Amino acid sequence: MADEFDVIVIGAGPAGENVVDRAVRGGLTVAIVEADLAGGECSYWACVPSKALLRPVDLAGEVGRVPGLSLGEIDASKVLARRDEAVSNYDDAGQARWIDNVPGELVRGRGRLDGPKRVRVTSAEGERTLTARQAVVLATGSTPVIPPVPGLAEAAPWGSREATGVKEVPERLVVLGGGVVACEMAQAMHGLGARQTTLLVRGDGLLNRMEPFAGEMVMESFTEAGIDVRTRTETVRVERSRPGGPVTVHLAEGPPLEADELLVATGRRAATHDLGLDTVGLPENAPVDVDDSMRATGVSGGWLYAVGDINGRVLLTHMGKYQARIAGDVIAARARGDELPAMRDLAGGYGSPQVVFTDPQICAVGHTEATARKAGFRVRVVDYDMGSVTGAYLLGDGYRGRAMAVVDEDRKVLLGVTFAAPGAAELLHAATIAVTAEVPLDRLWHAVPSFPTVSEVWLRLMEAYGL
Amino acid sequence: MADEFDVIVIGAGPAGENVVDRAVRGGLTVAIVEADLAGGECSYWACVPSKALLRPVDLAGEVGRVPGLSLGEIDASKVLARRDEAVSNYDDAGQARWIDNVPGELVRGRGRLDGPKRVRVTSAEGERTLTARQAVVLATGSTPVIPPVPGLAEAAPWGSREATGVKEVPERLVVLGGGVVACEMAQAMHGLGARQTTLLVRGDGLLNRMEPFAGEMVMESFTEAGIDVRTRTETVRVERSRPGGPVTVHLAEGPPLEADELLVATGRRAATHDLGLDTVGLPENAPVDVDDSMRATGVSGGWLYAVGDINGRVLLTHMGKYQARIAGDVIAARARGDELPAMRDLAGGYGSPQVVFTDPQICAVGHTEATARKAGFRVRVVDYDMGSVTGAYLLGDGYRGRAMAVVDEDRKVLLGVTFAAPGAAELLHAATIAVTAEVPLDRLWHAVPSFPTVSEVWLRLMEAYGL
Repeated sequence: MADEFDVIVIGAGPAGENVVDRAVRGGLTVAIVEADLAGGECSYWACVPSKALLRPVDLAGEVGRVPGLSLGEIDASKVLARRDEAVSNYDDAGQARWIDNVPGELVRGRGRLDGPKRVRVTSAEGERTLTARQAVVLATGSTPVIPPVPGLAEAAPWGSREATGVKEVPERLVVLGGGVVACEMAQAMHGLGARQTTLLVRGDGLLNRMEPFAGEMVMESFTEAGIDVRTRTETVRVERSRPGGPVTVHLAEGPPLEADELLVATGRRAATHDLGLDTVGLPENAPVDVDDSMRATGVSGGWLYAVGDINGRVLLTHMGKYQARIAGDVIAARARGDELPAMRDLAGGYGSPQVVFTDPQICAVGHTEATARKAGFRVRVVDYDMGSVTGAYLLGDGYRGRAMAVVDEDRKVLLGVTFAAPGAAELLHAATIAVTAEVPLDRLWHAVPSFPTVSEVWLRLMEAYGL
Repeated sequence: MADEFDVIVIGAGPAGENVVDRAVRGGLTVAIVEADLAGGECSYWACVPSKALLRPVDLAGEVGRVPGLSLGEIDASKVLARRDEAVSNYDDAGQARWIDNVPGELVRGRGRLDGPKRVRVTSAEGERTLTARQAVVLATGSTPVIPPVPGLAEAAPWGSREATGVKEVPERLVVLGGGVVACEMAQAMHGLGARQTTLLVRGDGLLNRMEPFAGEMVMESFTEAGIDVRTRTETVRVERSRPGGPVTVHLAEGPPLEADELLVATGRRAATHDLGLDTVGLPENAPVDVDDSMRATGVSGGWLYAVGDINGRVLLTHMGKYQARIAGDVIAARARGDELPAMRDLAGGYGSPQVVFTDPQICAVGHTEATARKAGFRVRVVDYDMGSVTGAYLLGDGYRGRAMAVVDEDRKVLLGVTFAAPGAAELLHAATIAVTAEVPLDRLWHAVPSFPTVSEVWLRLMEAYGL
């Protein structure tokens, strides 16, 4: 019967698509339900377009540090055009073809759980009920949260979708938030022509889940670039008298701010709303709790899984995809009576790797000093001024960067590493391998960084530790 | 007595300086003898100035791939000025101060062995004989080889010193060689204005110690950029009628080439000449053979060490420094009766990491497929088109790259990894850690690359392997 599949995935973002890929590879049939564009948030409204906007800004920064090169003004229209190309002009035909080819069945419409192993799909064509023989996988991601500031929702502010999809860069932009999206979009918009860019941050600083120096370096860089960062700020009221007109932001202290656009980037929540979680006995307003095989806890029969943002483990595309690979393999294995114990979420336990594409780029994996101490590890922290690395000096004048490693003194392995430096993104994976594979320091010592690369900071960190 | 030290190092390049650093840290007194600038080849005439010349060229390539950015002509005079800054205007006062501060004693002059544990230093001030209580370390590096082509030596061609020290970029440049120095300098000079740049290569292709695809990609890139690469070429005679005038290169086939300058980059040999090796029973015309602690073999009493290019293990600055750290620690340990067995050359055995700073950059560590098979490993090779990685696409239009991993099928670990892609230099250290620490593939699988970075190629390589 056409409406019965081994696996039904709700949500065709990167996580959902990876479940399809792995489950089909494991010999199962899969349907994937999507109400919006196949490819998901990441492909059209998050990682991909934001990096398309940031790349020229980032590169302009690099060029500015190299004597002998001179750059003209950034042509924002060409940058936006490449952004459009990067998001396939918001057309998911390519993604739909990819799913077809796996092969999986892409079912267009809104999917909701309808009791055990049943998914009801609502679309313009009507309703259809799908049945899963093995498993249903929730992969609906997350949605932005708009804080309850009077007038804010009515002002129709930008979220990350509108910011990454910008059609005309506003002259004056106010950003609410100090996390990754806030920082990246402030950087992008400022670099593309938002002359007056203001970040309103409730807390003490930027990127507060990272090592403190990371946020401090971004703050310093923003301030030097002319981005106005205001910490410990409380937004009390927002006004926008006509759609598309200027917006006024009233603060608890000081004069109100006027801007052409307002971006709200204060956080996201698991997209559990109207997903029928109640029909299987799960709460509606919380992430779907899962075990390390991505199977939802508290659902009898063990047929429900959740991968990506919706399970609340970590809101990062690559971790969602990782979880999806695990879930896809595990579901296929369990279908043939195998538990496949090697396939469990190991990476999440170490602390997920993440890159923030600001200038400097912030890259981190594993524990920060604070989380390591809180977790009870006996730690020692070493750090190094990356600007003192020859390979960094050769990249440009005034290169500034810092690296920090958190060492588990009992086992002599790295618990976490943070780099904050221009163009540092590709430095991270070495740290991710070292942390995830628990490579002993005295073995890491023999991994010789090539001269003159920035990676020589690894040698300096070892020396700082006394090796 | 002022002329007796625990350790005497001959050659104050990066390797020699690292011996000083580690031996002094181990409680020993050290003298370091240098006839030229303290800091060595790398600092003034090799890695450092070459990368200072290449960086703007490299970055111009990156900018050319990013819509919305437009670059003016490279101002070569500013690039050369920064090169001068990078080499401290060929002044070693900073390096001399560094040695002073370790503290070590910098002895200016030409050092030669003069029997066991004795070093005779000749300088304008006369002769001085130093005696070592523990060890003498040879760290004199290597010197370029000029092939015996009639008229070549008489034409006073450029070597790597003259190329990296270029004062005026020649309009027409001929490069003899197809290795790292030849490729990097051809790229630099062409990018800085050498309109007619010709590489004359004896063999079939470029970079022939790397995976074949690496040299092929550089060749393709050079050809597209207008650099004329001629393989299987035999240079039979060179003429330069007046110093500084044009040079004519006669080939075995085809018309002669005329150029404004000729760079010879056909290889280097260990700098063993006139080093007094005969006074301790070693041959004069071969690298100084050492064991994994960097101690010279065949010298009774075991007091002689050799680090860096002179021991012929591998001609790379970072490996010389690595060997120097080992030697310095081992000498200090042996002075107190400890063998320190953990400090041995482990990295060299895996295959040294190396980055070639061309466009694309070539990064490799460990075995190539060919050397792995020759060494008797049961290997499987996987590769991936790096242009298909989202993070790479986001770096620019027409990004092309390729990654290859050589897997030991018996132990399921990586034997070698090669990346060929623009700006790939910092990708390498992850591979260096994976190869050196022999991280099992099923553990590497859990090291999740951040999205959207180029490092996601790691995931693709794993998938290509079937994980």
